Amino acid sequence: MRNLRLVIEYDGTDYVGWQYQANGPSVQEEIEKALRNLTQEEARVIGAGRTDAGVHARGQVANVRIETALDSSELLKGVNAVLPESIVVHSIEDVQADFHARYSAASRSYRYMILRTRSALERSFGWYIGYPLDVEAMERCAATLMGDHDFQSFCKTIPEANHYRCSVTNSVWTHVENRLYYDITANRFLHGMVRTLVGTMVDVGRGRRTEQEFAAILEGRNRSLAGMAAPAKGLYLERIGYEDRR
Amino acid sequence: MRNLRLVIEYDGTDYVGWQYQANGPSVQEEIEKALRNLTQEEARVIGAGRTDAGVHARGQVANVRIETALDSSELLKGVNAVLPESIVVHSIEDVQADFHARYSAASRSYRYMILRTRSALERSFGWYIGYPLDVEAMERCAATLMGDHDFQSFCKTIPEANHYRCSVTNSVWTHVENRLYYDITANRFLHGMVRTLVGTMVDVGRGRRTEQEFAAILEGRNRSLAGMAAPAKGLYLERIGYEDRR
Repeated sequence: MRNLRLVIEYDGTDYVGWQYQANGPSVQEEIEKALRNLTQEEARVIGAGRTDAGVHARGQVANVRIETALDSSELLKGVNAVLPESIVVHSIEDVQADFHARYSAASRSYRYMILRTRSALERSFGWYIGYPLDVEAMERCAATLMGDHDFQSFCKTIPEANHYRCSVTNSVWTHVENRLYYDITANRFLHGMVRTLVGTMVDVGRGRRTEQEFAAILEGRNRSLAGMAAPAKGLYLERIGYEDRR
Repeated sequence: MRNLRLVIEYDGTDYVGWQYQANGPSVQEEIEKALRNLTQEEARVIGAGRTDAGVHARGQVANVRIETALDSSELLKGVNAVLPESIVVHSIEDVQADFHARYSAASRSYRYMILRTRSALERSFGWYIGYPLDVEAMERCAATLMGDHDFQSFCKTIPEANHYRCSVTNSVWTHVENRLYYDITANRFLHGMVRTLVGTMVDVGRGRRTEQEFAAILEGRNRSLAGMAAPAKGLYLERIGYEDRR
C-alpha cells in the first residue's frame, strides 16, 4: 500500500468545507471522487486542517493510502483533469507509511484578508471594512497572543483533544496598500478560532472594545465573551508545517 | 441637467459584457437599474470602453445625464447598496456638460494576465498556460506594436470610425512570480484586439509562429492571418485617460 501526500489549493466559496457533510459538496469528497475516477479505488483522503464552509486554502496538505500503479506525475495530471476548477492539486508524492497529514503536522498557518476598499473582483476573497480601524491597537492585541494560551473564549465546540491550549509562534497584522492581512501560525487551532480572533480584534480596532477587554476575554475562557466570527470568505489555510519538512 | 462621471470596477464573469444585449445581463443595464431605483429617472449610462462578455474592469469610466437632487456622495453610497456585489462604483462626481465618457477619452489601458501555475482561487481571473513560453520573443513582438499601426488583422468587426488605425503608447510584457502581464495603452481599441494580440503573441511564445510571421500578420491587414483570441477572463480594462485629467 502506498501513502501519498497531496498539497491542495481551493476556492472554498461553493463548498460546505473540507470535510464530508450531508448538506452539500465538500473538498474532501471531490478529491476522493477524482481519485476513484482515476484508480477505481475507494480511498479516504485525510486533510491536515478541517476548514469550514467558505474558507479557502492555498496549501492544504492531505494524505491517502492507495494501491494504484500510476506514478505520482500521472496521478497529478489525471486528478487535476477531473477535479472541478475550484480545486487544484499542486503536488503528489510518495511518503513513508507512517505519515499522517493531521497527526504528523507540527504547525498550521492561516491568513485573514480585510479589504479597506470595496472590491467587485475580490468580493469572495476578503472582508470589506469601510469604517476606520486603529490598526496599531489591533497589532498590539495580536502580539499578546504569542506563546502558549488557553483559547476557549475563541472556540466554537469542544476540541477533539479535550483541551484548549495552543502554542502561537506567529501573530501579526500587515498593512499593504488597501489590504490588511492577519497572519497566525500555531501548533493547532480550535474550531472557529482564527475568525473569532479576527472579529474580536476588529472590535478593538473600531473602538467597540478596549485592549484591556481583549486581554480579559482571552483570560476569561468563555466563548460568550468574544466577538462575532469574521466572515469565512476572508480566511485562507496557507500552509502546514512538518518537522522533517514533509 | 447634471452630468455625472463614474469610475467602475466589475467582475465580468457573469455578464454578457458592458453593453446591453438581449441574451443576458450587462453591466450597463445593472448600473442604469440601480440609478433608476435610486432616482426614479430613466437615464442612459455611456461607458468609455465596451468590454466583451467575461472581460473585467478595474477602471471603467462612464457618464450619465440626470436630474436628481441627491448629492454625489449619497448617490455613490446608494448605488453601491443596490448594485450586485460583482459591480462596484468607486467614485461619482459632477462634471462639465460636454464631458462624454467615450468621445472625450484620450486613451485606454488594458491588462492581460496569464497564470503560469494552475490556480483554483484565480481560475476566473487569468489564463492558465502550463507549456513553456519564450517570453523574450513575446516582449519583442509587443515592442513592435508601439506607435501608429493598422490593426485590421486583429479586429473582429468593422469599427465605428471605419478605419483600423490605432496609436499605441505602451505595449509591454512583465513577468512577476508565476504571472505574466501584458499591458497596452492606445488612443482606441478595435473589437477583440487585445485578446487577439495576446493569442497571437502566445503563438510566438510557444513556437507555433515566428516573430517574422507576427510582423507579417500586422502588415497583412486581414483577420484570418492572426491567432485565436485569448480567453476573456484574463482581460482587464484598467483605466481611461482624459486630456484634462478627468
